[in-house]
Amino acid sequence: MKVEEVGNYDGFENAWLSYRQQTDCKDKQYFTAIYAKSADAIVCTAVKELQIATEQILGQKAVLYREEPEAETVGIQLRLDATETVSEEGYHLYQNKGLIIIASKGARGILYGSFACIRRLQMECAFMKTAPEAFSFERIDIMEEPSNPLRMLNHWDNMDGSIERGYSGGSFFFRDEEVLVNDRTKCYARLAASVGVNAVVINNVNVRGNATRLIAEDYAPQVKAISEIFAAYGIRLFLSLNFAAPMELGGLNTADPLDETVREWWKDQMAKVFARIPNFGGFLVKADSEGREGPFTYGRTHADGANMLAEAIAPYNGLIIWRCFVYNCQQDWRDYKTDRARSGYDNFAPLDGKFRDNVILQIKNGPMDFQVREPVHPLFGAMPKTNQMLEVQIAQEYTGQQRHVCYLIPMFKEILAFQTYCKEQNDTVADIVSGRTWGNQACGMAAVANTGNDVNWTGHDLAAANLYGFGRLSFNTNCTAEEIAKEWIVCTFGGDAEVVETILKILMMSWTTYEKYNAPLGIGWMVNPNYHYGPSVDGYEYDRWGTYHRADYQGIGVDRSSAGTGYAMQYKEPNASIYNDLDRCPDALKLFFHHVPYTYQLRSGKTVLQHIYDTHFEGAAEAEKMRTMWQSLEGKIPEKIYHRVLERFDHQVWHAKEWCDQINSYFYRKTGIADEQGRKIY
Amino acid sequence: MKVEEVGNYDGFENAWLSYRQQTDCKDKQYFTAIYAKSADAIVCTAVKELQIATEQILGQKAVLYREEPEAETVGIQLRLDATETVSEEGYHLYQNKGLIIIASKGARGILYGSFACIRRLQMECAFMKTAPEAFSFERIDIMEEPSNPLRMLNHWDNMDGSIERGYSGGSFFFRDEEVLVNDRTKCYARLAASVGVNAVVINNVNVRGNATRLIAEDYAPQVKAISEIFAAYGIRLFLSLNFAAPMELGGLNTADPLDETVREWWKDQMAKVFARIPNFGGFLVKADSEGREGPFTYGRTHADGANMLAEAIAPYNGLIIWRCFVYNCQQDWRDYKTDRARSGYDNFAPLDGKFRDNVILQIKNGPMDFQVREPVHPLFGAMPKTNQMLEVQIAQEYTGQQRHVCYLIPMFKEILAFQTYCKEQNDTVADIVSGRTWGNQACGMAAVANTGNDVNWTGHDLAAANLYGFGRLSFNTNCTAEEIAKEWIVCTFGGDAEVVETILKILMMSWTTYEKYNAPLGIGWMVNPNYHYGPSVDGYEYDRWGTYHRADYQGIGVDRSSAGTGYAMQYKEPNASIYNDLDRCPDALKLFFHHVPYTYQLRSGKTVLQHIYDTHFEGAAEAEKMRTMWQSLEGKIPEKIYHRVLERFDHQVWHAKEWCDQINSYFYRKTGIADEQGRKIY
Repeated sequence: MKVEEVGNYDGFENAWLSYRQQTDCKDKQYFTAIYAKSADAIVCTAVKELQIATEQILGQKAVLYREEPEAETVGIQLRLDATETVSEEGYHLYQNKGLIIIASKGARGILYGSFACIRRLQMECAFMKTAPEAFSFERIDIMEEPSNPLRMLNHWDNMDGSIERGYSGGSFFFRDEEVLVNDRTKCYARLAASVGVNAVVINNVNVRGNATRLIAEDYAPQVKAISEIFAAYGIRLFLSLNFAAPMELGGLNTADPLDETVREWWKDQMAKVFARIPNFGGFLVKADSEGREGPFTYGRTHADGANMLAEAIAPYNGLIIWRCFVYNCQQDWRDYKTDRARSGYDNFAPLDGKFRDNVILQIKNGPMDFQVREPVHPLFGAMPKTNQMLEVQIAQEYTGQQRHVCYLIPMFKEILAFQTYCKEQNDTVADIVSGRTWGNQACGMAAVANTGNDVNWTGHDLAAANLYGFGRLSFNTNCTAEEIAKEWIVCTFGGDAEVVETILKILMMSWTTYEKYNAPLGIGWMVNPNYHYGPSVDGYEYDRWGTYHRADYQGIGVDRSSAGTGYAMQYKEPNASIYNDLDRCPDALKLFFHHVPYTYQLRSGKTVLQHIYDTHFEGAAEAEKMRTMWQSLEGKIPEKIYHRVLERFDHQVWHAKEWCDQINSYFYRKTGIADEQGRKIY
Repeated sequence: MKVEEVGNYDGFENAWLSYRQQTDCKDKQYFTAIYAKSADAIVCTAVKELQIATEQILGQKAVLYREEPEAETVGIQLRLDATETVSEEGYHLYQNKGLIIIASKGARGILYGSFACIRRLQMECAFMKTAPEAFSFERIDIMEEPSNPLRMLNHWDNMDGSIERGYSGGSFFFRDEEVLVNDRTKCYARLAASVGVNAVVINNVNVRGNATRLIAEDYAPQVKAISEIFAAYGIRLFLSLNFAAPMELGGLNTADPLDETVREWWKDQMAKVFARIPNFGGFLVKADSEGREGPFTYGRTHADGANMLAEAIAPYNGLIIWRCFVYNCQQDWRDYKTDRARSGYDNFAPLDGKFRDNVILQIKNGPMDFQVREPVHPLFGAMPKTNQMLEVQIAQEYTGQQRHVCYLIPMFKEILAFQTYCKEQNDTVADIVSGRTWGNQACGMAAVANTGNDVNWTGHDLAAANLYGFGRLSFNTNCTAEEIAKEWIVCTFGGDAEVVETILKILMMSWTTYEKYNAPLGIGWMVNPNYHYGPSVDGYEYDRWGTYHRADYQGIGVDRSSAGTGYAMQYKEPNASIYNDLDRCPDALKLFFHHVPYTYQLRSGKTVLQHIYDTHFEGAAEAEKMRTMWQSLEGKIPEKIYHRVLERFDHQVWHAKEWCDQINSYFYRKTGIADEQGRKIY
């Protein structure tokens, strides 16, 4: 079988937008004409995207008509209609007498509907034989409303061109202290918009050096140019902000949020920023965290800090997105009482109701830091009068750094489905961050992005499923992880049944596999310091970061029950009682909440130690299995991609064995208890 | 008490050459006139140094006479005399009817004698009251012959200005890919020559990028300028060489040492290098080590590689100094048979007699890599027909990185005194590398340097004792560590009895103290990977570097006996038998040679585990004690230096406690065996 090379766009590929020509398409006839009266820039983008897709997929470029279609016309109509029942970002995609109508109150709805239409066309072609009706346009009638007002990507890109925790090359936003604006900027916007992303922070939350000047006049022309490219794709540009800017940029001798001079300085800056950059969204702020300046420096609260900025940008409908990742990173490992997991709740919960309407608290999914397994952050649901947003990380900092395959959407699904019991109904994380629980308008989901200037955007080709998946999931949290994966596979690799099934299996098992050979039972952190890659059981055990497993010859785990640090009690009932109770606490989080003997019997019936041995051997074996599965696709995947991915699997298999052997050896050497199955431990 | 600030020389200090004025000096009268007939450049340097010293110490600049002194003249005579019994580098310093005579066959001997004279003047002033005769010039009659032909410093300076394992700022030889030639170059040469150093390699043994071009025409003017500055101080310039230069620089497609084109290329290059750079000494080569290219790449031996280069430089009396630090750095930690410690001997011993006369094998003091405690390298004495040189490291890579005080001369003394039993007499390491054992002409000692562009040269002011000490010891291996320390203290801080005694105590205890809180009983390597700083018991346990302690719940140590890796058998008898025998093996190296239960009783009577607990608590306490001792000198040390050093002691005290607590906790958690004294372990 001859496989087409993926599309190439000036030295980089188009990921899931690399359309492939389809020879048999049942509903081809609709895609000959596009009717779009509106000349709105975003509608024009939608038209152009439909034309690219029809040309590349069907070999025929749909003709554009800037008029209403006549009765019984066959084609696609983009209908901007204030009377539509869907919102400005929602869309109604349906068939009416030969006409496929994509309707919305707003242009962004039209754009999302158009991408949905293109996706469906690809799905239709893919499943033509196995499920001929499932994706047909014949009786299509879909109404989709985005789950989350904000669907945001956070790039940790530095102005020198590096990316903090970036695993797919350098930045395509910055290089050598300059802002880049080029074809790649646009292609990035296409990719993001195609999955419903509507907000992007382009610079690292750790704002240092010239990045502080991104709000100044120096960089305004380039920042404006990016903002305009984004705007045509319905994306609002945000920047990360340096809380100390009044000093570093303004020459003031304080950044105290209650100081009048500081407040005036910010107001003045904000007026200028919003004037210079149309479509500007606002700021993401990391304050009082890991060495960053913040309100604590001046004895003020985070509400004081966030509100000062929020007030300054309120006239421009700007948003302040305030990160809750605040903890003591100078902890003494000898101190068993201080608990980093408690810090988010302790710092922010008491401030409920104190934040302005245009402040959103951005809360990481768990209380620690993007480990392969953590409990859901207890702040979710704990602040009924405060806007909250969920932060996840698709850059796989602790989950294989885009060298191991680890499809994260199943994890995100679990987090979104977590019941906080903050209300009688609509109490899941998905409810809270969508605004359903308490009616917030400013809320949503953000992901730390996994892109870089690698030719395939994400280093590991399969890591693109996380970028795609985050967008789709944040747009529609009801989508299943399987549905999303399947769409992504079809769009990226085409519809061959074996390809779809095999990659789907790989993706769906990958997170579990990674967890199996990683730190066991929710304890996390068994990685090499700084790099956060590769096993080092004691790597963070005697450090200052609040990240301990407390393993000795008898047992392991952190007592976060009411008898320990009390962290479990930050949850509402019945979660608090469940986590607090050694036996009821889920196995997957056992060591996060409790210190237990290695001989403790898990709910699974295994001892903790035997569980460690078993899962690690299984995980390493599963990594091999995934490689074998991938190898079965040789000839069905473009050769270049096949080999790129195979190389990563080779590394993963080797590295999974390192994880397995190092962790098993560590515990065997510490306990002297043999594996029940007598497997080789070193 | 008002303390003089140390002398400052264009933004940097003069270390032990910062002379201080002395108000009472018994033998002042000799220092009014210098008689030096020779106008040799090095003799002129000696004159100038005597003049600087007399002016700064005595407040009177000695007048120079270019003639023979008349009978019964009082003064100093520098007498270059081919009939002298001392060699060209030795000197005879004696008194004759009011005339202090510094005589030698060679100008370098005159220079070393002059510095000895200056040193003695300072010692005389310092001990005027307590030992008025000990350093008097009245009946002085000293004949000193350097112990080692080569007394060399190896700088690991990179051309970007960084220093590999440099802990005192950036390079003063290179910056931004340029070679620096300035006042500091000269001051460096003064410092080096003042303690007898006669050879310097200015660039890193890992030769990359532009450093390969240091032998090319590009950098010739600057390299020549450095060489000339060095020459005036009797120092020969050496460079580190890239074995792959024929490809990287010459455009050949091989660097095979038996390839005729390669051999011709080197001959041609060498002719040019020695023509361009007068006084050039030769090359230091790291080949087939840690990723560097070497003869193994072409299936050749190290003798093939070294001899090719040696042949090319033989016409110019050049030397090839070939490092023996060759080992497999891709080891599997699961492999208990491969032993990095064996590799030097295994790779080189069979080649005895195969190397040309102008090749010297440079052998690290121990078989691993500059740990706080290692056995002496078994290659010493194992190659009777080969020139050998001892490599030590005064850059404290594994011994506190010039943030902890660790005076290394006592360690070097132990190494030099080690009896190899390679011959019935003259069989110590000192004998072998001096040439006494087998009559070698090309041999000596080299130290990886600890200098950088910090104002005080060595970061930690007390680390300068290692630079001074290495020079003095390599010039005279009979000097005791105490004598050397005392001289350095007097020259650096003056002769106040309390200052001398206190700093002497600190220096003399510092290595032992560091060893106490470090990895126990010779096992080494319990450091953070890459940085090599700070405790991490398992930091190198599951890595590829061949550096393991093999600790489990029952015991610890590497079996290098005949029943294990067999490393112990690389020594000559009786060393082999002693190391091989668990009970006879010295405690300090017990875990290097044997895997023992924690309950094993050491020769000291303590169990291994109790020894670990005790030494670690002691080490941390001694660090505090050293700080207290330093604090007792407040007001007697120039304030700036006092505070610089105090800051380092503050860090050391904190960090020694980290070492103590982390190591004790690690073993307590692994064994569950309590400290007999019930001290707090976490």
